[in-house]
Amino acid sequence: MGNTFGNIFRLTSFGESHGEAVGGVVDGMPAGVEIDVEFIRSELRRRRPGQSLITTARKEPDEVELLSGVFEGRSTGAPIGFIVRNTNQHSNDYDNLRDVFRPSHADYTYYEKYGVRDHRGGGRSSARITIARCVGGALAKTVLRQMGISVTAYTSQVGNIAIDRDYRKYDLAGAENNAVRCPDAEAAERMIELIRRMKGAGDTVGGIITCVIKGCPPGLGEPEFGKLHAMLGGAMLGINAVKGFEYGDGFDCVTGHGSEQNDVFDIGEDGRVVTLTNHSGGIQGGISNGNDILFRVAFKPVATILQPQRTVDINGRRVEVTARGRHDACVVPRAVPVVEAMAAMVILDCCLLNRTVRL
Amino acid sequence: MGNTFGNIFRLTSFGESHGEAVGGVVDGMPAGVEIDVEFIRSELRRRRPGQSLITTARKEPDEVELLSGVFEGRSTGAPIGFIVRNTNQHSNDYDNLRDVFRPSHADYTYYEKYGVRDHRGGGRSSARITIARCVGGALAKTVLRQMGISVTAYTSQVGNIAIDRDYRKYDLAGAENNAVRCPDAEAAERMIELIRRMKGAGDTVGGIITCVIKGCPPGLGEPEFGKLHAMLGGAMLGINAVKGFEYGDGFDCVTGHGSEQNDVFDIGEDGRVVTLTNHSGGIQGGISNGNDILFRVAFKPVATILQPQRTVDINGRRVEVTARGRHDACVVPRAVPVVEAMAAMVILDCCLLNRTVRL
Amino acid sequence: MGNTFGNIFRLTSFGESHGEAVGGVVDGMPAGVEIDVEFIRSELRRRRPGQSLITTARKEPDEVELLSGVFEGRSTGAPIGFIVRNTNQHSNDYDNLRDVFRPSHADYTYYEKYGVRDHRGGGRSSARITIARCVGGALAKTVLRQMGISVTAYTSQVGNIAIDRDYRKYDLAGAENNAVRCPDAEAAERMIELIRRMKGAGDTVGGIITCVIKGCPPGLGEPEFGKLHAMLGGAMLGINAVKGFEYGDGFDCVTGHGSEQNDVFDIGEDGRVVTLTNHSGGIQGGISNGNDILFRVAFKPVATILQPQRTVDINGRRVEVTARGRHDACVVPRAVPVVEAMAAMVILDCCLLNRTVRL
Amino acid sequence: MGNTFGNIFRLTSFGESHGEAVGGVVDGMPAGVEIDVEFIRSELRRRRPGQSLITTARKEPDEVELLSGVFEGRSTGAPIGFIVRNTNQHSNDYDNLRDVFRPSHADYTYYEKYGVRDHRGGGRSSARITIARCVGGALAKTVLRQMGISVTAYTSQVGNIAIDRDYRKYDLAGAENNAVRCPDAEAAERMIELIRRMKGAGDTVGGIITCVIKGCPPGLGEPEFGKLHAMLGGAMLGINAVKGFEYGDGFDCVTGHGSEQNDVFDIGEDGRVVTLTNHSGGIQGGISNGNDILFRVAFKPVATILQPQRTVDINGRRVEVTARGRHDACVVPRAVPVVEAMAAMVILDCCLLNRTVRL
Repeated sequence: MGNTFGNIFRLTSFGESHGEAVGGVVDGMPAGVEIDVEFIRSELRRRRPGQSLITTARKEPDEVELLSGVFEGRSTGAPIGFIVRNTNQHSNDYDNLRDVFRPSHADYTYYEKYGVRDHRGGGRSSARITIARCVGGALAKTVLRQMGISVTAYTSQVGNIAIDRDYRKYDLAGAENNAVRCPDAEAAERMIELIRRMKGAGDTVGGIITCVIKGCPPGLGEPEFGKLHAMLGGAMLGINAVKGFEYGDGFDCVTGHGSEQNDVFDIGEDGRVVTLTNHSGGIQGGISNGNDILFRVAFKPVATILQPQRTVDINGRRVEVTARGRHDACVVPRAVPVVEAMAAMVILDCCLLNRTVRL
Repeated sequence: MGNTFGNIFRLTSFGESHGEAVGGVVDGMPAGVEIDVEFIRSELRRRRPGQSLITTARKEPDEVELLSGVFEGRSTGAPIGFIVRNTNQHSNDYDNLRDVFRPSHADYTYYEKYGVRDHRGGGRSSARITIARCVGGALAKTVLRQMGISVTAYTSQVGNIAIDRDYRKYDLAGAENNAVRCPDAEAAERMIELIRRMKGAGDTVGGIITCVIKGCPPGLGEPEFGKLHAMLGGAMLGINAVKGFEYGDGFDCVTGHGSEQNDVFDIGEDGRVVTLTNHSGGIQGGISNGNDILFRVAFKPVATILQPQRTVDINGRRVEVTARGRHDACVVPRAVPVVEAMAAMVILDCCLLNRTVRL
Repeated sequence: MGNTFGNIFRLTSFGESHGEAVGGVVDGMPAGVEIDVEFIRSELRRRRPGQSLITTARKEPDEVELLSGVFEGRSTGAPIGFIVRNTNQHSNDYDNLRDVFRPSHADYTYYEKYGVRDHRGGGRSSARITIARCVGGALAKTVLRQMGISVTAYTSQVGNIAIDRDYRKYDLAGAENNAVRCPDAEAAERMIELIRRMKGAGDTVGGIITCVIKGCPPGLGEPEFGKLHAMLGGAMLGINAVKGFEYGDGFDCVTGHGSEQNDVFDIGEDGRVVTLTNHSGGIQGGISNGNDILFRVAFKPVATILQPQRTVDINGRRVEVTARGRHDACVVPRAVPVVEAMAAMVILDCCLLNRTVRL
Repeated sequence: MGNTFGNIFRLTSFGESHGEAVGGVVDGMPAGVEIDVEFIRSELRRRRPGQSLITTARKEPDEVELLSGVFEGRSTGAPIGFIVRNTNQHSNDYDNLRDVFRPSHADYTYYEKYGVRDHRGGGRSSARITIARCVGGALAKTVLRQMGISVTAYTSQVGNIAIDRDYRKYDLAGAENNAVRCPDAEAAERMIELIRRMKGAGDTVGGIITCVIKGCPPGLGEPEFGKLHAMLGGAMLGINAVKGFEYGDGFDCVTGHGSEQNDVFDIGEDGRVVTLTNHSGGIQGGISNGNDILFRVAFKPVATILQPQRTVDINGRRVEVTARGRHDACVVPRAVPVVEAMAAMVILDCCLLNRTVRL
């Protein structure tokens, strides 16, 4: 269980960090859609390690191969199988971890659950397997674009360096211009500096990604248990290192009053119903209201630090462990495309589900 | 879609606030378990309005009737159908809302999605339908108790009155001794006072519920997309008025470093693997590690305020609306049993799924 | 598991023969559809015992109550909960069966699976719980009618009395004019006579139901594992006492040749693609081709016979058992509406799924 | 939709006949099971074309590559991704079919459903994609073997040459000794002769496969809609060219009486409950009773014949079409391992589900 995501637009994922390949199957891709393999590759490059000095120095070509479901450049409605070979794995870096449970990794819990584990590079729990999510997300984005829906995520906080919560103050496209994917160029500089400092100390730091979805029609989301924000939240919490999710005003709304936070309805210039504010983050009663959808995702500092740590091994002995290899000091910049990918899959899934609600 | 929750232990819910009844079907209840109807009723009473001066004065007897799946006091493995009649509905209170979209309610979005809506008391989007969740949760708790697993939620913040994040400082059972369900009696007083003040002003306020799950074995949760915290988060975000979810250190972890936040493993007194800290909230890599599971849920101020508000109606006219009827000024105290119910269903579902992982 | 049927249009069923009620929840009913409760009741009456001398003499009023999902006569898109109270149950008829496994009933297998069982009237395995299917089917038919799709089943064989396989020779509506639901009035007489004879002997006999679905658009069905005939077959095999399913030429095709059985395409009068024959039963490659969909369902003689039979009891002792109470000597006439109900739910589900395949 | 099969043990399939590869993902494989890749390959060889003179002369090496989920020879509980490259495809054989709908193939219905189609070799509707089923089945069989459960299918009829329905008269293992996979060597000769004759005439013939499952514990199957035979039937009907399914006495039971067909219970030599006969085919009330499970599957003559046929093309013109290339005159011998594979997956899925029914 647990390796399939979505209802109508569904991604089934497989693969481990140091196995033969990571990959997946996208079922429910609408038929007749033009598939741009180069766009999928560009989305994978955004996720890839080795993009800049602040991300891990590992080089992974991450060449995706689409194996089915596309004929003469268009989706056929058949499932799209895809793989990305694991080619640059230094499995030996992990030899010392075969019998050791790294603190705050999945080593111990996988071992307890399954009785066996692939210790190399985190195995199935590695962030490398988000590749499958990015491919699914790129396909979803391809469809959403035709519907006039855009999904944009960016880094809004690293450690204690945070930018303004109001995304309307920024040119979000500009986030791709710096290594940390923050639309505030000045803050980006400071974030990069902080990550460099952490890296130098063999330590890590957390952060927050904000995501804005524009162009959604009203009506997306399936109450009672398939509320749009519940689907988005479930999707985000499944991303490696995520510790929290909030939408609209989120945790901040706790201290406010109803009289301040209600989004008053009005009639817009085009005669459509609009809200004068957007405390709701574009979702009311679990259903999109046509406004921008807005949510934030909290990431912890990655658990892999280049410092000696106490722990125990498989035989119940206390040992010391020090990670080797090439790792990120902050996962947030590379997680930006993963947040977008998951959001795109949720939105497309909801769009397709919504087609079944009325005759 | 969207009215069924869970994989093996599954709740399918139905009902509207002012319809004939709310109810549901629990499928996957293990066979042979003693069913205590009085316990189910007591859980419903915790959720019920009219419990105290700070909750709404509506009186709803909420008598649950189990219609199937129980024979001679034990579950049979057949689905358990149940209903609670709607008996004390003042539908006339809502006559003025037939054509009006209340700000920050689901009125507009339901209308856009379905083209029709039951305007009485919020219809399907009413918090009254959490009754079905509480019945499902009571059944799940009945099984979890046999497994030595307890689920306890409490109010940890109302408006800007917050208690210490460390739940180990409190006797959590004590939370049930005050109207606001906060284990810190002194803070509870102040919270009650704040809610009273809000009520007097016809306004509302938000809050936070913390939930602690004790006794979980290691191994619960299904990577990649069924991570335990993703299931819990999705479940919590589906509860009415929830705006955010975090587990372990949650959003606070953003500003910390890996070297501080990693939970170092050690060998406990009984020879089992333990962690010296619990920043992870009992979940690592999406799988329970045997430690207490800890998460927090943010609720917005309820949208129904007893003040006039601008809005628009179904015909695109600007109108003013003022809620009538009996409403909560803070939903958090009554949401405590709902948080527990959803958590209990998730944990039981994961326990059952986990039985299929090894031969 | 196993009490929910369908993908988008989903029926979740509950109830036992002698419990409080049987009922269910229909999720995925399109919004805005006019609901005719009297039509639902008339479908239930077709299934009900006591309709004629050849069916069981039990009188069950079977009054259905819709509890949710309908507002001012129209579906709202919310789930439709419904119950039918069990009012005329002679549970004492079954006192002698508490510890005995009736031959070819589900008594033994339920006991082995669940460790407990409700022995009264077959409990969950009773044919009485097909009531839930009939309600779901009536709702599905309501929608299909708007789409111009009709589902008609009839008795085509009882024991060795069979009518012509070519349904086009009969006025299918006429099947409702006789107690056995056979469109050939003369054969119906002989079938009724055979069933009477069986009843007199305390014995039972099997039969075949044929189902014809007219008006389906091409394109219904989801390869690879959701082929239209696989969904229909799975649905039919779930009906009590069913032992076989075939569509189009079915088992007869085994002895034919491809050159005879291929359905040659031609252009119809309206310029649309048609087939000159219909060996395929309206389904090719698992997808409807626009032709009439045709399938047949084999029912065994019901296991309850009014003759003494050898068996064993719960304590492993050999005993003799003789059924008491009121039972059908042939289940086929009353199963006709159940076949229609299941077929209607499958077709509607496929229609809704099909809306997600293209933008 | 429709490309995932199973509940706990789940196969997601992808690929077309002439695309890059066919493959799939098996999720829910129990952890710690020894994986014998050579066994998987041997199962694929049983399905492969070119095995004998009576099957198609196409040579497809069908080398399967396991990409994940196996570490040091054992399953890890992570999903098992696999691919088989398409290496020997003569796509040019299909150039003349680009715009033509072959009679009784899926050409027309896919085109109507999706608006596009991969015409080469049947695309997604090709029998070649049963490779994924065989890999899933081989993994399921690996687990079932450890549980003492065996799944054996064989050819019991080709055209009008049928062997005795009582499988206990044959050494079923012997079926693998002849090209047609029939355990009656003499009948096998005649079947082979018939198929040769058909092939010579450019025509095709149908047949029946019987399947016997031994060693199942009582309790498998999930009423109400997940009855064991409904799962088996749905699985079988999804195999290419299948037109009918029956279990136990199947369609033959129609003409019998309850007094003859009931399976009388007795106490076996080991003190366990047994039935003296097995008209039920090992399944009562949808749940296995511990007896041998028995079912039969009817296959039509394959639609591809080497004779000119009338049809229409994509532009609505009447044309003539003659298949080229290498095709089977009878699909039944090569479908035997596919039937086993699907049955094995169903049985394992039910075994895993059954673990969740009692504490």
